[in-house]
Amino acid sequence: MEQHYTLEEIKTWERFYRANFINSLSGFKSASLIGTINEAGNTNLAIFSNIVHLGADPAMVGFINRPLAAAPHTISNIEKTGVFTINLISEEMISKAHQTSAKYAEGISEFDATGFTPQFTETCKAPFVKESKVKYSAELMEIIPIKYNNTFFVIGAIKEVLFEKSLLNPDGFLSLEEAETIASLGLDAYYRAQLVARYAYAKPDLEPRLINN
Amino acid sequence: MEQHYTLEEIKTWERFYRANFINSLSGFKSASLIGTINEAGNTNLAIFSNIVHLGADPAMVGFINRPLAAAPHTISNIEKTGVFTINLISEEMISKAHQTSAKYAEGISEFDATGFTPQFTETCKAPFVKESKVKYSAELMEIIPIKYNNTFFVIGAIKEVLFEKSLLNPDGFLSLEEAETIASLGLDAYYRAQLVARYAYAKPDLEPRLINN
Repeated sequence: MEQHYTLEEIKTWERFYRANFINSLSGFKSASLIGTINEAGNTNLAIFSNIVHLGADPAMVGFINRPLAAAPHTISNIEKTGVFTINLISEEMISKAHQTSAKYAEGISEFDATGFTPQFTETCKAPFVKESKVKYSAELMEIIPIKYNNTFFVIGAIKEVLFEKSLLNPDGFLSLEEAETIASLGLDAYYRAQLVARYAYAKPDLEPRLINN
Repeated sequence: MEQHYTLEEIKTWERFYRANFINSLSGFKSASLIGTINEAGNTNLAIFSNIVHLGADPAMVGFINRPLAAAPHTISNIEKTGVFTINLISEEMISKAHQTSAKYAEGISEFDATGFTPQFTETCKAPFVKESKVKYSAELMEIIPIKYNNTFFVIGAIKEVLFEKSLLNPDGFLSLEEAETIASLGLDAYYRAQLVARYAYAKPDLEPRLINN
């Protein structure tokens, strides 16, 4: 049966109940680990859910950073060093990845606390997560403050990509399900993904057609 | 085997190959149908992949709109009427939902062209999709132009929510997999989601703990 709630009703809900509801309402997300480093060389790793594809040429990515009081380290490291990595999460990484959301004391790296292995390349100062099967680095382009709730929209230019060769399709598509990459929902739920179908470029005068890879 | 590509290499790739690659790189998304209406009362429906949760209090959502030349109707309707709906896609809706991405002639509604049923509430001028099992409306707060590639970040305040009662958990979480809500990947792939686990709020001094609902 279809329920119908207005904002006025939702506003009266208990804070955590409402947070669970509104966070899950917008659907499945690509929760990923963002790796950064500060000027003293201390690494940071944190899980972020709200990541968007912004464009393929130039290759750009964006993510939402919570207010500074809740999540200060990632954004402050990015401001200082201008670089970050985004590391997709495979099923066997879930519990450690979720644990990076704990508020560790200043000076404790989530790499050490959770047991993920930092991985560096010749060109990227920020740490990748060795255990991740698909990961990329980005250079900061802009941080746009969202004035309504003190969140930030962080925009980066993709600079480098590391991934398992077996995931790559002949047309450039990455079969992330073969890396057991998870989707997330709400604040705390993690899902495995099973391909239903790929569809060819839609045209007004043609019926939907499946892509058979 | 781990592949490593730099931006300089990626830039040399064929345009559609690169688009498939970069679009799938950022992981699973909550592809959804955005419903709008213009001042003359003509409805529009289009599939969007890059949707973020921006906050629970106030309840806010954001999405990326492609450049005006590629996707003019949704954003122009929102500018004029100040309102839009976001409708999650269930598995049986996939082929029609994908078809909304075809470039229909001016004046043809994707509702008519694809066979989705417009649904109106007393308070929302923009059309919902009757077939969708989880949907919400939003009032425009701001359109932020992304200058690097002429895309837009559209921010809305959630005003109204409609969903199947059976999906709601005692803690406010929506079990979208029970509505067969899909996740999307890249430009054209659709996935079913299977719950792996929910984890309790992480704390530095505690091991990760499962939530058992």
